Amino acid sequence: MLTTELSEAEVSALRANKDRLAKDLHHSCQWGSGIRWGDGPTDTGMQRLALSDEDKSVRNWFIETAKGLKCNITIDEMGNIFAVRPGRRKGVPPTFIGSHLDTQPTGGRYDGILGVLSGIETLKVMDEMGLETEGGVGIVNWTNEEGARFPISMVSSGVWAESIPLARAHGLKEVPTVASLPTASSAPESMKSALEKIGYLGDIPCSYKATPMAAHFELHIEQGPHLITAGQRVGVVTAVQAYRWYRVNIRGRDTHTGTTAFQHRADALYAFAQMMVRAREVASSHGCLASVGIVEAKPGSINTVPGLVSFSLDIRGPETELVATVEETLRKDFDAIAAEEGKGIGKPCQVEWTVEFDSPAVKFHPDCIDCVQQSAEAVVADAPEPKALVRTIMSGAGHDSVFTSKRVPTSMIFVPCKDGLSHHPEEFCSPEDCATGTSVILQAIIRYDRKRFSS
Amino acid sequence: MLTTELSEAEVSALRANKDRLAKDLHHSCQWGSGIRWGDGPTDTGMQRLALSDEDKSVRNWFIETAKGLKCNITIDEMGNIFAVRPGRRKGVPPTFIGSHLDTQPTGGRYDGILGVLSGIETLKVMDEMGLETEGGVGIVNWTNEEGARFPISMVSSGVWAESIPLARAHGLKEVPTVASLPTASSAPESMKSALEKIGYLGDIPCSYKATPMAAHFELHIEQGPHLITAGQRVGVVTAVQAYRWYRVNIRGRDTHTGTTAFQHRADALYAFAQMMVRAREVASSHGCLASVGIVEAKPGSINTVPGLVSFSLDIRGPETELVATVEETLRKDFDAIAAEEGKGIGKPCQVEWTVEFDSPAVKFHPDCIDCVQQSAEAVVADAPEPKALVRTIMSGAGHDSVFTSKRVPTSMIFVPCKDGLSHHPEEFCSPEDCATGTSVILQAIIRYDRKRFSS
Repeated sequence: MLTTELSEAEVSALRANKDRLAKDLHHSCQWGSGIRWGDGPTDTGMQRLALSDEDKSVRNWFIETAKGLKCNITIDEMGNIFAVRPGRRKGVPPTFIGSHLDTQPTGGRYDGILGVLSGIETLKVMDEMGLETEGGVGIVNWTNEEGARFPISMVSSGVWAESIPLARAHGLKEVPTVASLPTASSAPESMKSALEKIGYLGDIPCSYKATPMAAHFELHIEQGPHLITAGQRVGVVTAVQAYRWYRVNIRGRDTHTGTTAFQHRADALYAFAQMMVRAREVASSHGCLASVGIVEAKPGSINTVPGLVSFSLDIRGPETELVATVEETLRKDFDAIAAEEGKGIGKPCQVEWTVEFDSPAVKFHPDCIDCVQQSAEAVVADAPEPKALVRTIMSGAGHDSVFTSKRVPTSMIFVPCKDGLSHHPEEFCSPEDCATGTSVILQAIIRYDRKRFSS
Repeated sequence: MLTTELSEAEVSALRANKDRLAKDLHHSCQWGSGIRWGDGPTDTGMQRLALSDEDKSVRNWFIETAKGLKCNITIDEMGNIFAVRPGRRKGVPPTFIGSHLDTQPTGGRYDGILGVLSGIETLKVMDEMGLETEGGVGIVNWTNEEGARFPISMVSSGVWAESIPLARAHGLKEVPTVASLPTASSAPESMKSALEKIGYLGDIPCSYKATPMAAHFELHIEQGPHLITAGQRVGVVTAVQAYRWYRVNIRGRDTHTGTTAFQHRADALYAFAQMMVRAREVASSHGCLASVGIVEAKPGSINTVPGLVSFSLDIRGPETELVATVEETLRKDFDAIAAEEGKGIGKPCQVEWTVEFDSPAVKFHPDCIDCVQQSAEAVVADAPEPKALVRTIMSGAGHDSVFTSKRVPTSMIFVPCKDGLSHHPEEFCSPEDCATGTSVILQAIIRYDRKRFSS
């Protein structure tokens, strides 16, 4: 049967197989299973760093499985794996389901993994039904999405979108803390040599030109508390918020804590404390977020007032302009705080900003959003109040879909996760929610195929 | 001539030799000279960690020099060196001039060093004049006053006062950051093995019982801005402020910076920032100081809200009770801050305090203070407005005199230092100020000897 021959009701009736999906997902988690948090056989986190031996094993399994589902496999220079189930028409780009199989060093079983596994389950359902698509349907496993081993997140979809130069990505060195983990080699190595070592340095150029897509859909756990708190089952992701990452340095003066009155200090850490409090205030007032994840104070002695502080600042907001406004306000406010601290000795603190990453707001493609919205409504239609179970949502985190959206129609689907928790061994998404999300992506793929070729 | 035979005018006329003192001081700084900050031959800081090879060399020089000044040398189990010039009377304890020859890793040429060198200059003046004292006059070099290599400050005067157990001091391991400096051995070693290695593990018990003192005087740079700012030349130190050191831990929850609204966070670093701002507020209102020198935030990732923060807190004040009041207020305030952060998820932050060091306020001995006051007034008497050049002052920092004061009459003399700066290569005290302070300690020693034996 061809997708374009299905009735609307038949599309709406399509469902993923909950048990098979759960079985496959946990089967794939045998490679790199991490910290145990409960008694059940699957009650562990994951520790599957990009291009580790565990990553190699799960990649091999992914390719074997996809081949069993009649896919053709290609691997590009970044180790991205594209598994394509051909459609009826030749010479048209396939529609992709994509995400990643790598995890944080103390990650869980769903972030990324669910996305790739939803692709496998989608192909299994189509196979079972003997369903043929007009364009091909592909699954892509993007390399090193987490940025945990090689320190740029979403680096390989970034190269594919030609937003990040290949040489820069290949040259990335694994981060030292990760190098000391048992899953990584003992000496820091480059991404290129790590790709070679596990046999995943492909020869196809990593580019949207060499591997074109009709569209990119991604299923992901929300990694936030909105769906789970509201008891909602599907988030139709319409956008990804803008974010900018900065390194901010404050220079004051080292002095003795016992002999230096407050008015004689240029205490860089005290200035920092005021800045962090102010950052939340300003971000809040613009409906944005501002966070500090890293702070270092030097010289780091109990009886010395720190003369140097360096911290990371992460500003996010629904619009690129809002993030810019928060930044602008904070630059002024931080300068004012610094000017006060050390004024008494005529040597006020000084602040220096460096932008480390800039990701403007992304709006997903209306065609993809429509397909997801219709599919989500169809999947929850049997529930007592179906309308209340589906909402549109903005992604707070970055995903490979941010980069694919620069080149092809893209959208995402969120499902709830326990306590909104992710990047943590106890990250959890129920088998029901995994299946709901997968049913949505299955229908969305088919709806998109029908939309492309029905006119 | 005997000290008790001198006239008051003769005592008041005693002066240190400025040039000889400066020459000896900089001569002693050849061992362990540190970071260069100017073009002059003595324009460097010092890097002479306790029990390093450089410390061994300066100790050897100190002993040879003291022997040349007719001193008997004893060394105790903590490597404290006591050099005693005998007095006319036998069987009475000597009056000591004491300080330390070790420095911070990026220290200067005056902190501690000036105190020991003022003792040598005092003996040289007495020798030159053929002056005999009733009781002996000693110089003591206390081991590891800085606490920079072995992490307890004033540890060896603490053992001498029987305030710190010998076994605890001997067992101290050198701190890792210091172990990696070229002046220390590459593997962390214990204080006892470091003493053995440089041949300074003496066999005399380290105790005020085994090495009794009649009194302890200490000359030190102020390490603060009061004297230099007011253009004053001598600080008669009457007391040392109370201080307590704490380790404070805040437990919140790690979460994603992009997907977690402020009201869903238990951001341990945000709680810390509010606490640090509050600490200055509360300390100020009680005439106290509160400082944070060390802060660590975990897990330390740019896009993760820190779930764990650990910081050092140093509270100081003129009275022990004031420090206790500040602590009590901050314990309540920190709890209140923590209770707010994380309230939205029902998992507020939690705060834990550990007291790491407790040094109650010290009042120096009136007899010693009187000797210093009279001597200071005599030394500056020729200046246009002598009264304005001497002030009483409280020490903000701890010194070996804190521990000696627990067992014997003690007081200190402060001289100005440039910008109030110390623990820094550019720490500076002019040759004139060094000589002024040394003249004061010289006279104070003689006045104290006369006071003891004149009745």
